[in-house]
Amino acid sequence: MQKAAIGVDIGGGTVKLGLVRKDGKIVLKDIFRTEPKAEAKVLVKNLCLAIHKMMSQSQRFSLKVIGVGVGAPGPVSKERGLVYSLTNIRGWRKVPLGEILQRKLKVPVSVDNDANAMALGEFFYGAGMGARTMIALTLGTGVGGGLVIERKLFRGSFFSAAEIGHLVINEEGPRCACGNRGCVEAYVGSNYFTAFVKKRLQKENSVLKEWMQNDQKVLTPRLVAEAALKGDLFSQRVWSETGGHLGTALAGLVNILNPEKIVIGGGIAQSGSLLFGPIRNTIKKKAFPIASSSVKVVAARLGVDAGIIGSAALVFSL
Amino acid sequence: MQKAAIGVDIGGGTVKLGLVRKDGKIVLKDIFRTEPKAEAKVLVKNLCLAIHKMMSQSQRFSLKVIGVGVGAPGPVSKERGLVYSLTNIRGWRKVPLGEILQRKLKVPVSVDNDANAMALGEFFYGAGMGARTMIALTLGTGVGGGLVIERKLFRGSFFSAAEIGHLVINEEGPRCACGNRGCVEAYVGSNYFTAFVKKRLQKENSVLKEWMQNDQKVLTPRLVAEAALKGDLFSQRVWSETGGHLGTALAGLVNILNPEKIVIGGGIAQSGSLLFGPIRNTIKKKAFPIASSSVKVVAARLGVDAGIIGSAALVFSL
Repeated sequence: MQKAAIGVDIGGGTVKLGLVRKDGKIVLKDIFRTEPKAEAKVLVKNLCLAIHKMMSQSQRFSLKVIGVGVGAPGPVSKERGLVYSLTNIRGWRKVPLGEILQRKLKVPVSVDNDANAMALGEFFYGAGMGARTMIALTLGTGVGGGLVIERKLFRGSFFSAAEIGHLVINEEGPRCACGNRGCVEAYVGSNYFTAFVKKRLQKENSVLKEWMQNDQKVLTPRLVAEAALKGDLFSQRVWSETGGHLGTALAGLVNILNPEKIVIGGGIAQSGSLLFGPIRNTIKKKAFPIASSSVKVVAARLGVDAGIIGSAALVFSL
Repeated sequence: MQKAAIGVDIGGGTVKLGLVRKDGKIVLKDIFRTEPKAEAKVLVKNLCLAIHKMMSQSQRFSLKVIGVGVGAPGPVSKERGLVYSLTNIRGWRKVPLGEILQRKLKVPVSVDNDANAMALGEFFYGAGMGARTMIALTLGTGVGGGLVIERKLFRGSFFSAAEIGHLVINEEGPRCACGNRGCVEAYVGSNYFTAFVKKRLQKENSVLKEWMQNDQKVLTPRLVAEAALKGDLFSQRVWSETGGHLGTALAGLVNILNPEKIVIGGGIAQSGSLLFGPIRNTIKKKAFPIASSSVKVVAARLGVDAGIIGSAALVFSL
């Protein structure tokens, strides 16, 4: 029988899981909602049931499940598979999820931060293949990060490395939710981005104003991308500046880590060349030539399945 | 016979070398000047002579030289021990120093960037002992950096990692010699530091003015430290700000690498708590709690011999 892993992607309101072959292909998927304000115990129970079901179905595909990988939002301590917090889940505080699952499922369980799982997935099966050192970014409300260093996921001494969103690019810059000023997340996190665009629109000409006023459209990064692609100069400038800020942070990281690849995924990354162009130009301009000429900035490839595949990769990399 | 290595520290105007035991102790030292505008060939020849002499003397100490380590300023490619440039040495352009020395000396030769060698020396024998992940900084005209990641020197994909001085802390900050704006080196590199203090002195009250005008003293970081220790408020503010800038860069790195230790050496670091206090406070304030509470910021311990000992460590770590 071929080896497989179950990858679990714990999100805000849903848990997705998949039976993943060693070549990264998903052969079976499942999904369940977490009730708002559900209890921690209920979530763990439902998770076990879903995994058990998938394990029993695996034989149908002639696959042997050698372990379960779980990607959870926020900080995770690898030692006991400790998940510190899960928003909206009652009583979830420092739950040793890895330990609990392993006892109930009787297979090795590896729990990690979702950004780390995504990074590992892209490294094994996606846009990061072949790199020795790779930086992964997920652009959403926050900026998630993962680092592969010398072909291994790098977690830092206390599992809190790769907080790339909180690299400061301007000591005097805008306030970030972390308490700091000028973190790159305070420029490119989607809420910051939208608030910033909204504020600037008061003094600028843009088709965005018409869309919002006449067509009742909601201002989102996607809408700003749409406007830019239709030739709206203001929106184009916004993307160029946003890419520039992200490029500054990445140029610093390129000088520090000299990676071969930077893999960028998540909502805002779907603006494509609007963002990637300025990022590449800024890295070229701001990082040292040896380092900047040898790094490729590429879009993440695993899309909506990145969480499942990445979590399964946690098992295969054990 | 006990094993030993010869560590070579190529500096601006001198080459220092030492016979180093595996416990990091130097049992014999030598030094020679490089003539201004000396030729590359002459330098290599003199270097070989000095190493040969030291190798033959090693028997007197019952030591067997198992290799030679060389720390050189600027970028070095590990592959052929290629040293790209040496200021003031005529005809030095991409010299495969490692290859040449190995052929002539018939022992393994490891050539690396001097900041990497220093980092490794502190990790094996100095202030970095016991760390799994460590950031090393040398504060001089520039800001040199070295990274130990998971107990190994990390060089990056093309040997150009750890350029910590060129992490941007203010996109709109002062111009740096690298062409960029707001690199941390443009705040704490000794020339920038001195120029900045000189400019600010025009509008400020400080004992430094009297010292410079009445006592003909030259403005240096050391003089500013002296003034601060004597209670000069302006100088104290300068150190606090300088430590703050360095702290911002290091807080970012702490968020990215989650190291156990940050080891700081070099001229400016001798200002001691004037600099270390604000650095520690800024990291505490700006980095994530898990990461900032687990990192120790400490002074380098190997002093003037750091180059020799670090270069020898390159051999022992092979």
